[in-house]
Amino acid sequence: MMESKYQEVSGLYLSLQWPSPPRNVLLVKKPYVPVVTESFIEFANHIHSTYPSLSIILEPKVASELHEAFSFPVYTTSSGSGPSELHQKVDLTTTLGGDGTILHAASLFSTTSYVPPVLSFSMGTLGFLGEWKFAEYKRAFREFYMSGAGVGERNALLEGQRDDIGNSGWSSIRGKSMGSTRGARVLRRSRLKVGIFDASGNRILGDSRASDAAPDHDVHAMNEVIIHRSKDPHLCIVEVFVDGRFLTEAMADGMIISTPTGSTAYNLSSGGSIIHPLVPSLLLTPVCPRSLSFRPLVLPANTPITLRLSSKNRGREVEVGMDGARLRRGVVAGMEVRVSGEEIEQDEKGCFAGGVPCIIRSDGGNGASDDGWVEGLNGLLKFNYPFGEEH
Amino acid sequence: MMESKYQEVSGLYLSLQWPSPPRNVLLVKKPYVPVVTESFIEFANHIHSTYPSLSIILEPKVASELHEAFSFPVYTTSSGSGPSELHQKVDLTTTLGGDGTILHAASLFSTTSYVPPVLSFSMGTLGFLGEWKFAEYKRAFREFYMSGAGVGERNALLEGQRDDIGNSGWSSIRGKSMGSTRGARVLRRSRLKVGIFDASGNRILGDSRASDAAPDHDVHAMNEVIIHRSKDPHLCIVEVFVDGRFLTEAMADGMIISTPTGSTAYNLSSGGSIIHPLVPSLLLTPVCPRSLSFRPLVLPANTPITLRLSSKNRGREVEVGMDGARLRRGVVAGMEVRVSGEEIEQDEKGCFAGGVPCIIRSDGGNGASDDGWVEGLNGLLKFNYPFGEEH
Amino acid sequence: MMESKYQEVSGLYLSLQWPSPPRNVLLVKKPYVPVVTESFIEFANHIHSTYPSLSIILEPKVASELHEAFSFPVYTTSSGSGPSELHQKVDLTTTLGGDGTILHAASLFSTTSYVPPVLSFSMGTLGFLGEWKFAEYKRAFREFYMSGAGVGERNALLEGQRDDIGNSGWSSIRGKSMGSTRGARVLRRSRLKVGIFDASGNRILGDSRASDAAPDHDVHAMNEVIIHRSKDPHLCIVEVFVDGRFLTEAMADGMIISTPTGSTAYNLSSGGSIIHPLVPSLLLTPVCPRSLSFRPLVLPANTPITLRLSSKNRGREVEVGMDGARLRRGVVAGMEVRVSGEEIEQDEKGCFAGGVPCIIRSDGGNGASDDGWVEGLNGLLKFNYPFGEEH
Amino acid sequence: MMESKYQEVSGLYLSLQWPSPPRNVLLVKKPYVPVVTESFIEFANHIHSTYPSLSIILEPKVASELHEAFSFPVYTTSSGSGPSELHQKVDLTTTLGGDGTILHAASLFSTTSYVPPVLSFSMGTLGFLGEWKFAEYKRAFREFYMSGAGVGERNALLEGQRDDIGNSGWSSIRGKSMGSTRGARVLRRSRLKVGIFDASGNRILGDSRASDAAPDHDVHAMNEVIIHRSKDPHLCIVEVFVDGRFLTEAMADGMIISTPTGSTAYNLSSGGSIIHPLVPSLLLTPVCPRSLSFRPLVLPANTPITLRLSSKNRGREVEVGMDGARLRRGVVAGMEVRVSGEEIEQDEKGCFAGGVPCIIRSDGGNGASDDGWVEGLNGLLKFNYPFGEEH
Ligand SMILES: NC(=O)C1=CN([C@@H]2O[C@H](COP(=O)(O)OP(=O)(O)OC[C@H]3O[C@@H](n4cnc5c(N)ncnc54)[C@H](O)[C@@H]3O)[C@@H](O)[C@H]2O)C=CC1
Ligand SMILES: NC(=O)C1=CN([C@@H]2O[C@H](COP(=O)(O)OP(=O)(O)OC[C@H]3O[C@@H](n4cnc5c(N)ncnc54)[C@H](O)[C@@H]3O)[C@@H](O)[C@H]2O)C=CC1
Ligand SMILES: NC(=O)C1=CN([C@@H]2O[C@H](COP(=O)(O)OP(=O)(O)OC[C@H]3O[C@@H](n4cnc5c(N)ncnc54)[C@H](O)[C@@H]3O)[C@@H](O)[C@H]2O)C=CC1
Ligand SMILES: NC(=O)C1=CN([C@@H]2O[C@H](COP(=O)(O)OP(=O)(O)OC[C@H]3O[C@@H](n4cnc5c(N)ncnc54)[C@H](O)[C@@H]3O)[C@@H](O)[C@H]2O)C=CC1
Repeated sequence: MMESKYQEVSGLYLSLQWPSPPRNVLLVKKPYVPVVTESFIEFANHIHSTYPSLSIILEPKVASELHEAFSFPVYTTSSGSGPSELHQKVDLTTTLGGDGTILHAASLFSTTSYVPPVLSFSMGTLGFLGEWKFAEYKRAFREFYMSGAGVGERNALLEGQRDDIGNSGWSSIRGKSMGSTRGARVLRRSRLKVGIFDASGNRILGDSRASDAAPDHDVHAMNEVIIHRSKDPHLCIVEVFVDGRFLTEAMADGMIISTPTGSTAYNLSSGGSIIHPLVPSLLLTPVCPRSLSFRPLVLPANTPITLRLSSKNRGREVEVGMDGARLRRGVVAGMEVRVSGEEIEQDEKGCFAGGVPCIIRSDGGNGASDDGWVEGLNGLLKFNYPFGEEH
Repeated sequence: MMESKYQEVSGLYLSLQWPSPPRNVLLVKKPYVPVVTESFIEFANHIHSTYPSLSIILEPKVASELHEAFSFPVYTTSSGSGPSELHQKVDLTTTLGGDGTILHAASLFSTTSYVPPVLSFSMGTLGFLGEWKFAEYKRAFREFYMSGAGVGERNALLEGQRDDIGNSGWSSIRGKSMGSTRGARVLRRSRLKVGIFDASGNRILGDSRASDAAPDHDVHAMNEVIIHRSKDPHLCIVEVFVDGRFLTEAMADGMIISTPTGSTAYNLSSGGSIIHPLVPSLLLTPVCPRSLSFRPLVLPANTPITLRLSSKNRGREVEVGMDGARLRRGVVAGMEVRVSGEEIEQDEKGCFAGGVPCIIRSDGGNGASDDGWVEGLNGLLKFNYPFGEEH
Repeated sequence: MMESKYQEVSGLYLSLQWPSPPRNVLLVKKPYVPVVTESFIEFANHIHSTYPSLSIILEPKVASELHEAFSFPVYTTSSGSGPSELHQKVDLTTTLGGDGTILHAASLFSTTSYVPPVLSFSMGTLGFLGEWKFAEYKRAFREFYMSGAGVGERNALLEGQRDDIGNSGWSSIRGKSMGSTRGARVLRRSRLKVGIFDASGNRILGDSRASDAAPDHDVHAMNEVIIHRSKDPHLCIVEVFVDGRFLTEAMADGMIISTPTGSTAYNLSSGGSIIHPLVPSLLLTPVCPRSLSFRPLVLPANTPITLRLSSKNRGREVEVGMDGARLRRGVVAGMEVRVSGEEIEQDEKGCFAGGVPCIIRSDGGNGASDDGWVEGLNGLLKFNYPFGEEH
Repeated sequence: MMESKYQEVSGLYLSLQWPSPPRNVLLVKKPYVPVVTESFIEFANHIHSTYPSLSIILEPKVASELHEAFSFPVYTTSSGSGPSELHQKVDLTTTLGGDGTILHAASLFSTTSYVPPVLSFSMGTLGFLGEWKFAEYKRAFREFYMSGAGVGERNALLEGQRDDIGNSGWSSIRGKSMGSTRGARVLRRSRLKVGIFDASGNRILGDSRASDAAPDHDVHAMNEVIIHRSKDPHLCIVEVFVDGRFLTEAMADGMIISTPTGSTAYNLSSGGSIIHPLVPSLLLTPVCPRSLSFRPLVLPANTPITLRLSSKNRGREVEVGMDGARLRRGVVAGMEVRVSGEEIEQDEKGCFAGGVPCIIRSDGGNGASDDGWVEGLNGLLKFNYPFGEEH
């Protein structure tokens, strides 16, 4: 695996720069939807024929669903190797589906701090997590793949000459560069680090989505972690600690701790504010609190927050969910969900770790801030949608 | 059974007037809490010794738990006879517990339009549904029992003389009348009529709480009926019809239809307004809607509302709950929950039907409106609780 | 003046029935907008030529603006006679403008309990108060005017024969009846009765909009009455009494008491619920309360509510507004705004008083409930507007 | 003037360290309240007698009110010199009053990026801005004054010896050190930079509170800047631009741009989330928006935000307010309020500029995070105040 390299642009977005051509691409798709599957096959074929040096990796389920569809070898994340090894193989990830597919792709890297950059496509309707339209997949993938290739390399490429990396390099891609020479822009969406502990303080099953084994370390969530009464018809009672201090006892359907990215997901439905993904913060938002005075809170990203099931929930089991997936086991009185914001770090070589690096769309240069957030608010979420008849 | 008679007082509250002394009292209690059980026994003993002509009825579960505790015979709602017969036996009901116990007592009459008057006691903390402190049980029950007894009867009673009804009458109660001569004041809390229908329009299992049999008619809820995603981690999609017209498609955790009584329960947690129980209305309140523009609605009480599980919820089963109890079966795509407000009617003899007649507290005559609602808002719900240090 | 007669239809809407042909129509318009003025002239000319027996009344301001535009005599509400006499002359009112114009028309009758029926037209965009499109003015006015004319009268009319009422009767209207024979449907929007009292309990200037004289009785509001800090940069402190009982002390920008009609106006902006106009209720909604626990309340329509400026607002004057118009004088510490819901009454002859009778649109008979409310929620207010890209 | 020096503590709070003893203290007080004035005199006398080398500076209004109360000379911020010079004289500031007094003290430095550290006392009730109780003024001021004095200096001081700075140094303070040797902890509350521009883009009157002169540069707000319809009874229409991009057109009572510090002030009343003061962000919160879908937004602190009065507000003037004070002139159509978050910077000598450095209370060492925020939420704001009877 090769860690991608970033440079800061205007203090907000990063510019992707591959030190050498990426080699392994993980293709993720939304399951069960025929039209998605078709497009997925088209996309994979395009990758294979245009970028012959790239190896294609599929999830086992997808591989077995589609093994007859491809005339070329694909790799799978072998079921033996845990997801924890995936991040060492994958250089870049693409998703085809909606926000849920991006969340799922991110969950494949939920146990590691390094997540390869993600380029996400949607069919039809756009989601909110900054997706690209499938129709533009050729240009988008090319810019992603070529991002940060030096001028010389590009020239070679444009001239059709071979570079010294040989066939596996950028020069193997024929044709004109379709994008500009600047690198693809990256929004690092920071995640939550989540650990679950039993009443004696022992770490228990973390993220059943990714593995059967109880992880011995934190798992990461991109949107939120939630404790919810779920099928129990009664309120659940949760003690909330902030930075080790008792904050409050919540009687509610549940408690959400969300990232800014997740602020437009469940948090929004629960009445929380909408937070720009670059505000380093954690959101603490109750779901249907039995209180007139529980206002959502926004805390510094590095604040440790603990949700403890109160002993008043005798015998009852409530659920823990991350990014829309339930953990296999619920939690009972005394158990704790411990959360803090993942730190985004840059090592001395300039490489970043932490967060999910998402390739955002460039709409032709309205400044560093045009990350589609304002467009998403207005276009998708109908933010402050004006009253009056349809125009 | 004898239907109690009411008179209107100031157009808001009714005054309870027994045509002849009540004979059967149903005693309901919160389960599993030792201190409640103890008080319950004390209370039952008091009823038996002070009102010897009153028969005591218990729920089977309570009867078997306590059958050794009483030296006198008690009756149970025999398991054979459905709850539908209970309302023909019971003249008055008392509850010992919290709001949940009142809801449970009301659920015993959920299939009939007649509900006997309820006097509710709580241990320790008061709930919001207008309860009385257990400490005042002697006076409270006496006023309830004596309510509307004519002056003659009262005099006889106060003199210790026998009335013509004999031992079974009011005069059997020794001692001074502790209350005033006016009748106990009654707040009729109107309920929802709820029916559940499959995709072909056939009525299906209504209220599994009360009976195993599928009811062939509506059941009633005192707080609310709710459709909720429950253990399904995804949003559920509900089509809402008002008076037969399509209103909206809700994507949410759930949808609540609440009575004004229920406005301070789940509706409150979901962001709904607080509605005085005498405003004839239905509340339509979403739970965590995936929308920025779903404001709670309040509709006239007689508006038929239908919640239909959208066909977009393919394969998924969501739950239906009434007053905090889950129905045994969930609903799937195409099924409908049909709701409207119960009408409160008065027959030519002046007897009322409809709603749950709750005995409210009199605090010494501040006018007809003192129903404890304002006190409940301030004292219990901490409505508009002032900022600043504890005094 | 002749009071219009109504019959109940399905318990919700009334059907307008003129005992004899109406004679005086008040035409109200939005000021200052040229396109409105043009349409207004077209409309007045149509009324004059098609309904020659109808006298046209204008507000003085409008009359002087347009006195050259008409070749026929118009009447004005003479400045000497107060608005209190207007209701004795006017049989029906039409408005041309937006919601604000309807509110203004209603304010002309704010001191009387009888308000003639209102037919409201809007140019371009519809408002929320059930307006008609100006394009349909001919049919709409005809149905309004003819509403409830008996079959005989209609026949005569259709045959072009003279009826015995002579030229001033319905038969003077030439041409085919464009509408059905059922009466125009009426939604009576109930109002607030508002009185303002100084610290000694004396009634002070009520509604400066309508008259210079201090009214000696209540004035009425259709949307809401509001106390607001206005240009004072500090919070105002208001004591709220419900039915004579102290409810709470609000520290806020202001306090709104709203009708259900007004629930979609300022109340909506302040976070209140949306209430159907037929729910007999009053809404108590704070504007920017300095509290985490001030939830909007809905009270029975006949509850007296008092807002008293707390003595803590020493020296400061805050404003009182009704339906978007400020009262000329503000209120200071100790003063009270006393409000209750107007009662809607029917006398023995079947005539109604109370509320503003608004002619609602019939969209072809989807049942009594189709009052445009659901359509207004969806079409105008974008209630629960779905997420996703524009279709 | 000497800029105080800070060190970082745990990445959150700073530790105050005077390079040499501070010389000039500005004493600010709440006006008009006799009990505050009395305590103020006591406090000033204490400062004078205990810290003889400290010069006391008063605002002109306070100086003239109290000039007879002091037997020693005090200095005033001469009316000639603008507030812009004050920051060069004042080493430290104390306030006596409430949150409003702190806001006022901060406003004296609203035109400069350097604000001297503030120690705030309140009488009676605490406010939310981290105040100290007046009762503890001796210890609090001493710790503030001594903060970061080296061990040697402290010893000298404790021994009563003279240091080389002579009488003007720390050693002049008699008695035992009451506090620990660690420095006073500082929370830098970041401010907004605000500029107001006319329709042609010329800067106009900035902050009328501080000076009559039109400032030629931005002014700073600690809580918020607000555009508000004020005494105009109609909605105002504001175009909002984020980072140069059109975000939305708000029809509302007003628009607030708030700091995290201000999140518990007007923003809270308007329904915004509560943001910890250390989350680098700006809050965009509408006041009573005429929309169902205007959710408060939280943006990165360095986002430029522009509020422009829409040309649809023809002729109308709306108000601009900062921290509870109205600007002398309102704004009309086309004018813009331009805001961004102030940057907090540290120079090479380790000195900070930007923000209002507030001395926070130490409650005995529960870690770096105990800044009173959690206590303020619970104790003052009654955050998630539990239902149930008073205990
Ligand atoms: N009542 C609610 O609002 C609920 C929301 N969710 C959210 O759904 C997420 C999982 O997504 P799916 O698997 O697709 O579940 P899903 O099929 O229940 O759909 C959730 C919806 O949220 C959208 N979404 C997801 N993440 C988003 C984000 N960061 N910003 C804006 N929109 C976003 C999706 O596009 C989809 O429309 C969870 O992380 C949770 O945030 C889950 C359950 C209930
Ligand atoms: N997130 C929430 O707020 C939830 C609320 N509920 C409510 O709980 C009710 C059932 O009550 P329990 O069996 O005691 O369940 P529970 O043990 O979950 O307690 C619900 C709480 O609501 C109170 N409550 C019930 N009815 C009320 C009313 N009409 N007004 C004010 N407070 C009321 C109870 O005193 C109790 O504190 C349901 O009808 C539903 O309204 C149920 C689940 C979740
Ligand atoms: N922040 C806010 O939401 C404010 C609202 N208002 C409302 O404006 C009303 C006066 O209207 P205008 O003179 O036109 O003032 P305006 O020119 O300020 O417009 C108020 C808006 O509210 C609409 N509106 C009025 N009554 C309505 C109703 N019952 N339901 C739905 N929408 C309604 C109007 O069509 C207009 O769009 C007042 O009664 C008050 O309710 C007034 C000031 C501020
Ligand atoms: N409806 C509302 O909530 C209004 C709020 N205000 C706020 O008042 C502030 C000015 O304060 P005063 O001159 O004392 O005006 P004021 O006398 O109107 O009182 C405002 C209240 O807000 C409190 N407050 C001020 N700043 C705060 C903060 N950062 N966090 C928590 N509470 C805070 C004060 O202690 C006081 O209780 C403005 O900056 C504005 O935020 C001003 C007008 C209306």
